[in-house]
Amino acid sequence: MSKLYGNVVIGQSGGPTSAINATLSGVIRGALEAVKMGDIGRVYGMRNGIDGLCEERLVDLGKIFTEKQHFIDLEHTPASALGACRKRLPDPDEQTLPFEYIIDIFKKYDIRYFFYIGGNDSMDTVDKLSKYTEKVGYEMRVVGVPKTIDNDLDITDHTPGFGSAAKYVATTVKEIISDCSVYTAKAVTIIEIMGRDAGWLTTAAALPRIGGKGPDYIYLPERDFDMDSFFSDVKTALKSHPDVVIAVSEGIKFADGRYVCDNPNAKEDAFGHTQLTGVGNYLASCIKERIGCKARAVEFNISQRCAAHLASRTDIDESVAIGRAAVEAALDGVSGHVMIFTRSHGRYKTSISSVPVCDVANKVKVVPDEFITPSGNNVTEKCIEYLMPLIEGEATCRFEHGVPVHFKI
Amino acid sequence: MSKLYGNVVIGQSGGPTSAINATLSGVIRGALEAVKMGDIGRVYGMRNGIDGLCEERLVDLGKIFTEKQHFIDLEHTPASALGACRKRLPDPDEQTLPFEYIIDIFKKYDIRYFFYIGGNDSMDTVDKLSKYTEKVGYEMRVVGVPKTIDNDLDITDHTPGFGSAAKYVATTVKEIISDCSVYTAKAVTIIEIMGRDAGWLTTAAALPRIGGKGPDYIYLPERDFDMDSFFSDVKTALKSHPDVVIAVSEGIKFADGRYVCDNPNAKEDAFGHTQLTGVGNYLASCIKERIGCKARAVEFNISQRCAAHLASRTDIDESVAIGRAAVEAALDGVSGHVMIFTRSHGRYKTSISSVPVCDVANKVKVVPDEFITPSGNNVTEKCIEYLMPLIEGEATCRFEHGVPVHFKI
Repeated sequence: MSKLYGNVVIGQSGGPTSAINATLSGVIRGALEAVKMGDIGRVYGMRNGIDGLCEERLVDLGKIFTEKQHFIDLEHTPASALGACRKRLPDPDEQTLPFEYIIDIFKKYDIRYFFYIGGNDSMDTVDKLSKYTEKVGYEMRVVGVPKTIDNDLDITDHTPGFGSAAKYVATTVKEIISDCSVYTAKAVTIIEIMGRDAGWLTTAAALPRIGGKGPDYIYLPERDFDMDSFFSDVKTALKSHPDVVIAVSEGIKFADGRYVCDNPNAKEDAFGHTQLTGVGNYLASCIKERIGCKARAVEFNISQRCAAHLASRTDIDESVAIGRAAVEAALDGVSGHVMIFTRSHGRYKTSISSVPVCDVANKVKVVPDEFITPSGNNVTEKCIEYLMPLIEGEATCRFEHGVPVHFKI
Repeated sequence: MSKLYGNVVIGQSGGPTSAINATLSGVIRGALEAVKMGDIGRVYGMRNGIDGLCEERLVDLGKIFTEKQHFIDLEHTPASALGACRKRLPDPDEQTLPFEYIIDIFKKYDIRYFFYIGGNDSMDTVDKLSKYTEKVGYEMRVVGVPKTIDNDLDITDHTPGFGSAAKYVATTVKEIISDCSVYTAKAVTIIEIMGRDAGWLTTAAALPRIGGKGPDYIYLPERDFDMDSFFSDVKTALKSHPDVVIAVSEGIKFADGRYVCDNPNAKEDAFGHTQLTGVGNYLASCIKERIGCKARAVEFNISQRCAAHLASRTDIDESVAIGRAAVEAALDGVSGHVMIFTRSHGRYKTSISSVPVCDVANKVKVVPDEFITPSGNNVTEKCIEYLMPLIEGEATCRFEHGVPVHFKI
């Protein structure tokens, strides 16, 4: 593959994670090294993804990242430092105008390398852009780098961002189990964890089992949820100890396909607002009613995706590495690909490679059967073995006056 | 004051904090040193506070704490390692039986020192026990050590446990502000923080202002909440930026004294459960309705009191020190007192002393006027100055296989 000289543009898109800026740092590190080598020209960041690109809201990252500490601080900053968008490009066979417009901008800034860090929608953008540029003969390299706390991407062993979210879930569940253990009165605590289609993040609730105790039960969207079995499970646990802790994925469904959180409590109030109760609150209220003991819900909410102060060292290091690898792949001629992790057997080690983005986009990888107990209300030791290395190590951020330092682009 | 030889019993009570075990560690450290000096005999822990004492569920702590690392791990373990209870002793002038029973147990185990770490209810226990033992001539020393994330105790400059909860609030609010900043669409995020009677913990939401940006508004129970002013505030903020973040105390009230969270949405569902929506969810639904923009609520819930992985170094060190100081005070003859912090002027420094427990118990210290802006919807720089030293430093816990190590008694 011949060398391609030109400028680089990098974007971030989709929901934030604690590691998406580590990947951004990796791409910038790799690209600025290539600038030094004379392989490429400038390194631009687009603000708010494709939206900002179309509005030419570009920043010259080489002028911003002038010290090593800038990279380190960025790697410990949650959310997308460049901002994000939720734009999806149309089908280029039906509508070429947006693509022509983007190519004009590429030409104006001599962009030959396009890196997009994001989830499924972003990989769709990578796919369409690489195909269109190839079709019209505009020579460039378009590479996607995945990020999602959901870990539901196909082919890759795991996704950047998942390990940190899993570490937050593991630590916080452990702390909540401690908190729940102090009283002798019967009480059930339901912890609601993100994951609409796959239960990966909820499986991480089992990690306090390492050297301690995990939740009594873990319910995932991969298994039909049955109210009677649930009550029976809760009653069984209450017989042996007063402090029952249960982890549920927000996406658990009944056998008929209805989400458990689409419950009959959704009513209109005096102002006409529809009040949607989360699945945790719903199950807690059912327990109070049917079992008659104290019950409460804890929703981890957005902290599970942005608690950068508790990121996984492994995840942050891998996220930087996959960003760097994307630059190397693009310089080697790869385009229309997404970067992936492969896990070696034996001692934990990952290697990074790439696959065509169309092989990955718009698919959902669910938690496999061997990770779920036969009773369907907990996870297996095999699942813990899979998760453990991903949360290993602490990516301690820098604090100033007691508050974490975040890097602002 | 003459020397008093005998055994020690230590208990914990009330809601957990991240620092209550640091105080326990301080009391045990101090007491075991006194054992070495020959000043006292054994050091017992009572499980589940007064409840466990009455059931003689005592543990010999000298046999458990045999290595320095045990203390360090305990100091980084959330919640009450000895367990807690919510028992209140009756008025000894009306009912002496429970007190006679407890004194029998004291005699049986030769208990001459009683340390109780807890909130207001626990201080009530300290008060009654010390008065009763004095009245019946059973020579002993009864000392209370405060803990509460609410910081609403009178006389003391601040309470053990508050600094760590405030650090959690500061860090998590900062991370949420980052998370909210990535999109360009208008959205309001309401963060609901604990504090039914006083807004101390909610004031900590302002701490990300140090070197950055805090929430747009902060509403405390110390000021009447007015719905129209609230909507007007939100609209003003939305004019200047799309990502509006608001911190509210769970205890905010209307001028007529009704809690905002006792809202008309509390309805019975199909099963007859009453659905209570938190104040954050309620305000978010009001914004959707009246302003028509995206709005969501984040409730910090129990993590704000048990996130020991993010404790304040200052808080943990001070909590150990106040526990040790309680032992010294008791050995010096103090009884019926609660330990307090006094802050020196100039550079932050605290000294520890004690005051009669009846001067402190059953009072609530609210956030003073000088800490709240005249408009009543934010906090002043003076408030930030008060809070800053309390969250200084990180009490990093030990992790094993990616999960924090907690000490179990």
